[in-house]
Amino acid sequence: MYKFAIIGAGRIARVHAAAIAAHPKADLVLCASPRVKAAQELVQPFGAAASAEVEDVFSNPDIDAVLVCSPTSYHVDQIINAVTAGKAVLTEKPVDLDLARVDECLAAIAGSEHRAQVGFNRRFDPSVAEVLGRVKRGDIGEPTQLTIISRDASPPPASYVAGSGGIFRDMTIHDLDLARAFLGEFVEVSATGQSWDPAINDFDGGTITLTAADGAMATIINSRRCASGYDQRLEAFGTLGSLEVTNQRATSVRYNTAFASHETSPYLTHFQDRYARSYLAQLDQLISALDGDVAPGPTIRDGRSALELADAATESAMSRRSVPVGQ
Amino acid sequence: MYKFAIIGAGRIARVHAAAIAAHPKADLVLCASPRVKAAQELVQPFGAAASAEVEDVFSNPDIDAVLVCSPTSYHVDQIINAVTAGKAVLTEKPVDLDLARVDECLAAIAGSEHRAQVGFNRRFDPSVAEVLGRVKRGDIGEPTQLTIISRDASPPPASYVAGSGGIFRDMTIHDLDLARAFLGEFVEVSATGQSWDPAINDFDGGTITLTAADGAMATIINSRRCASGYDQRLEAFGTLGSLEVTNQRATSVRYNTAFASHETSPYLTHFQDRYARSYLAQLDQLISALDGDVAPGPTIRDGRSALELADAATESAMSRRSVPVGQ
Amino acid sequence: MYKFAIIGAGRIARVHAAAIAAHPKADLVLCASPRVKAAQELVQPFGAAASAEVEDVFSNPDIDAVLVCSPTSYHVDQIINAVTAGKAVLTEKPVDLDLARVDECLAAIAGSEHRAQVGFNRRFDPSVAEVLGRVKRGDIGEPTQLTIISRDASPPPASYVAGSGGIFRDMTIHDLDLARAFLGEFVEVSATGQSWDPAINDFDGGTITLTAADGAMATIINSRRCASGYDQRLEAFGTLGSLEVTNQRATSVRYNTAFASHETSPYLTHFQDRYARSYLAQLDQLISALDGDVAPGPTIRDGRSALELADAATESAMSRRSVPVGQ
Amino acid sequence: MYKFAIIGAGRIARVHAAAIAAHPKADLVLCASPRVKAAQELVQPFGAAASAEVEDVFSNPDIDAVLVCSPTSYHVDQIINAVTAGKAVLTEKPVDLDLARVDECLAAIAGSEHRAQVGFNRRFDPSVAEVLGRVKRGDIGEPTQLTIISRDASPPPASYVAGSGGIFRDMTIHDLDLARAFLGEFVEVSATGQSWDPAINDFDGGTITLTAADGAMATIINSRRCASGYDQRLEAFGTLGSLEVTNQRATSVRYNTAFASHETSPYLTHFQDRYARSYLAQLDQLISALDGDVAPGPTIRDGRSALELADAATESAMSRRSVPVGQ
Repeated sequence: MYKFAIIGAGRIARVHAAAIAAHPKADLVLCASPRVKAAQELVQPFGAAASAEVEDVFSNPDIDAVLVCSPTSYHVDQIINAVTAGKAVLTEKPVDLDLARVDECLAAIAGSEHRAQVGFNRRFDPSVAEVLGRVKRGDIGEPTQLTIISRDASPPPASYVAGSGGIFRDMTIHDLDLARAFLGEFVEVSATGQSWDPAINDFDGGTITLTAADGAMATIINSRRCASGYDQRLEAFGTLGSLEVTNQRATSVRYNTAFASHETSPYLTHFQDRYARSYLAQLDQLISALDGDVAPGPTIRDGRSALELADAATESAMSRRSVPVGQ
Repeated sequence: MYKFAIIGAGRIARVHAAAIAAHPKADLVLCASPRVKAAQELVQPFGAAASAEVEDVFSNPDIDAVLVCSPTSYHVDQIINAVTAGKAVLTEKPVDLDLARVDECLAAIAGSEHRAQVGFNRRFDPSVAEVLGRVKRGDIGEPTQLTIISRDASPPPASYVAGSGGIFRDMTIHDLDLARAFLGEFVEVSATGQSWDPAINDFDGGTITLTAADGAMATIINSRRCASGYDQRLEAFGTLGSLEVTNQRATSVRYNTAFASHETSPYLTHFQDRYARSYLAQLDQLISALDGDVAPGPTIRDGRSALELADAATESAMSRRSVPVGQ
Repeated sequence: MYKFAIIGAGRIARVHAAAIAAHPKADLVLCASPRVKAAQELVQPFGAAASAEVEDVFSNPDIDAVLVCSPTSYHVDQIINAVTAGKAVLTEKPVDLDLARVDECLAAIAGSEHRAQVGFNRRFDPSVAEVLGRVKRGDIGEPTQLTIISRDASPPPASYVAGSGGIFRDMTIHDLDLARAFLGEFVEVSATGQSWDPAINDFDGGTITLTAADGAMATIINSRRCASGYDQRLEAFGTLGSLEVTNQRATSVRYNTAFASHETSPYLTHFQDRYARSYLAQLDQLISALDGDVAPGPTIRDGRSALELADAATESAMSRRSVPVGQ
Repeated sequence: MYKFAIIGAGRIARVHAAAIAAHPKADLVLCASPRVKAAQELVQPFGAAASAEVEDVFSNPDIDAVLVCSPTSYHVDQIINAVTAGKAVLTEKPVDLDLARVDECLAAIAGSEHRAQVGFNRRFDPSVAEVLGRVKRGDIGEPTQLTIISRDASPPPASYVAGSGGIFRDMTIHDLDLARAFLGEFVEVSATGQSWDPAINDFDGGTITLTAADGAMATIINSRRCASGYDQRLEAFGTLGSLEVTNQRATSVRYNTAFASHETSPYLTHFQDRYARSYLAQLDQLISALDGDVAPGPTIRDGRSALELADAATESAMSRRSVPVGQ
């Protein structure tokens, strides 16, 4: 049984708390957040402690693993403190909005990098993981084109957008990590931002094109808004065939009339529903890493690489030129 | 180039005329029907002759093949006359509503049976034919259960129903022929008729269960009416898997909203659309048989066997007992 | 918080224990089974007590609700004892294999029938419940034909089959309950049993046809074995359209090659996966009933009606005649 | 009955000849091509004349309409000659590879532009036309993102590629025309070319991003090769929902095993199959235009606009910058 602490008490912290509760080898013992009431509420069903002092996480020798669910600007310090205190860490994405800070983090945890995992949970979705595994074993021959369509059901509040680092660092970063997982490192990024909704003081959609060294390409299509739900699709296309992840629905009901046939459920609307199993599998890998079973990942270096691509996409969308990366 | 005559000038005659026009080796030369105006209208686009005298078909030595599309009670005499005149014949189903008459037909054409084919066109549908071929080569292991759902979009006129021999001889007979094609001969038939619509003076639906000698079973579900179109589905289920024919639509459009995802086209509504390719393939087989390429079929004997099953289904639905067949 | 006891410690008892653990208002306090080691193992993750004495369930005044998961022959006594002790009961199906015993049960709990629910969990499956709700509100007009295809992935052990009461009382009974939920009471049952696998000393498949008083029909197709998983489909067909429940899969992956397009996951294979949410919803209704929120159901009377139909199906399959019911 | 002439005797000429034969109001009377043997072969089943002299088309006063199916460099002269001779014209795409030549064409036929239609046949595909019609009537609210995936089954010969004007003018031009049909005029084009196959001396794939004046975006993904067939998909995404055209297959067969469920047909492989109905509908519109029923289109001006976008895409892919258009 491994003892877990969560830093932060927001929406994503609650998702992780539920995953811990469902795992037979994990026990939530502490939630630390300056918003101590929220922390108390979060731990209530699990019989864990709450604290307003984040330091309590690092100083408690019983705690084996820390989930960093605080605002982005706190991530690096908390990762360093937790790793230095000998704990395993799973941090929410992005590691930081500033590449230099990520490099500081990497320097500070040098030699213990294997103790820190970045929460790119989509890699752990059973459908995505199946497609990735099949691509790696050659089921589509050589992959030549990857297409990701990723649209949120509705945009976050303007206040969140203001501090998010922009759509590419905040939303696209998940897709950029997946693109790397499928096609490896890229040499060039071209992005077109879309400004549709004047209420959003940022791009609210766009298309990002990435070129890999071997000539394979990835195309990512994003939107902050999708009327029919949380639109999460992926197609890996290769010389021998293609593998797709299609949208998922809450029920398997079809309705046939004189005018149409309907699947009566729209796409799953909330990331907590669509990726429920990926949070469990992500946690399970962290626990297996604690057991010494597997090499952990995605790592802080993976987080750095995805951020570098997001920076390049941002620059490309502003300059209207393609941007070389990874030299 | 083979010269064809059509006897009859109704809806199904026009379907066959279009198939002949589309076939590079077939030429329509004559349409004979007492309704000579309808015959003239039918041949007009094809530059063929029309006649009120059916005898003109048999006496014309140029005619290679005859399509019998007349009312059912004329089929047997016309088959006999055409075969006796040395022509190939494709007759619409059923051969006759009376088994004794079918036996007379078989006796009269003895030795030339291979020149007469029954229009069980669904065997020639590319999807059905693919499933049948895969079942025969073992793709589902041993077939154990066959399920056919067959529903017309809307019922025929009461006048047609009155002379149709009842739903099992008129509509189910196609499904009974398919059941034989998949599972071979049956030993027992159990049928439940449905009387939903008081305007139809016959069963307007029902379920027919057939048991084969080896223990395999077929279940046929029929309805004279289906709001969402012409519902034509089939599932062959075996020890290693199953093969299905699903419904077909006119377009491949999907519409996704906050409430549902729609395939915007309902099922194809008319048998002429759903089975357009099966009429072409059926004709093509007849022509190949004329060339000496293939053994023709389904034969008049197949027509007899399907009628025997339809008779048994009718008896079972009336007596509320299962009826043994084929002894 | 309601305190629950489970009688029995087998596979289905563990499914219910997991549902209790997941419900915020339910607490498992006791598992009683003569197989006390299995009971101890079952309660271990939940911190509940285990007992070899079933009487401990009835005598414990703290227990609010009892889940009867014992062998069928014990159900009636345990239902009576639990209801008499003032507890709510959810019993697994069937109530008993003998209609007379079910009638004894009904007599003994007269006046408290609302405290006993039968575990026809499929009514609570979100897809089935959605279709049932839409049919009731008229989305397909008047329902005229119900088709249920229900096939287990693999047959139970011969020892289980021997005491099961036969396929219609053991397996079809779920489908018979659903047929009643959709179409109300039936007047006639016709069944054909299938004996394919000589290793199973019972029918291992079959087709059951039911006729309702208003002329609507239900057709149930069963098999003890399905190579592609647990095949659970339903179609409610009416005058204005149809509603289907289609099979569900573990992932949403498609694989396209030069030869075919695959959905790479077969149907869900285990009832615990396919109906996971229905066990939760069923328990949730029992708890709502304890709160006084809803009228409970399906009731012991529903269990009796389904058993009556199963008896009639058994008689019909043996006698090869249709059997009138419900007079 | 309108009399048609075809200029050219290649693959696409044969597609048009078949469409003419199938149309009740059209009659093929002449095929003119310097490859007179090919022309003779083409007309043989239709009883039309063949000529080695293209001039015979323009000088024949009986001919109502001309289909220009010659190599691209001849299109402009033949369009001008046919229009000047008072005939209606349907020209294959592109009008020319050089914008200046297209402008010469427009100048020469000024006042008679309505007599010339460009063969952007995909607009006439029943599925595409349905989606376009629904988008125009507001079914998805305001369209914000259009995604087109268009992949050929296999690349053309190197000799064809050499004279094709490059992938964007040759292949993407269909998608660019569709993008205009959906979203109107664009202000900016960004394209990334892909060079995967060294045997193709041109980009063999790529992603093209277009921005409309109102902020809507189109993304086109192309490949010269697709193992699973001719991949033709389109999604119009808007503020209230989305409309998709999905791939089509030759049969509706599904195959379910312990490992997967297959649609046993891959995508249709040939454009002649996938777009068979669009060639018929395109011709039908031309004939309706001759009747005076509808305003014809797409016009030579539409051909010019698509070419301008293709030029901009080519420039963007070479310069690695976005390119403004339409000022």
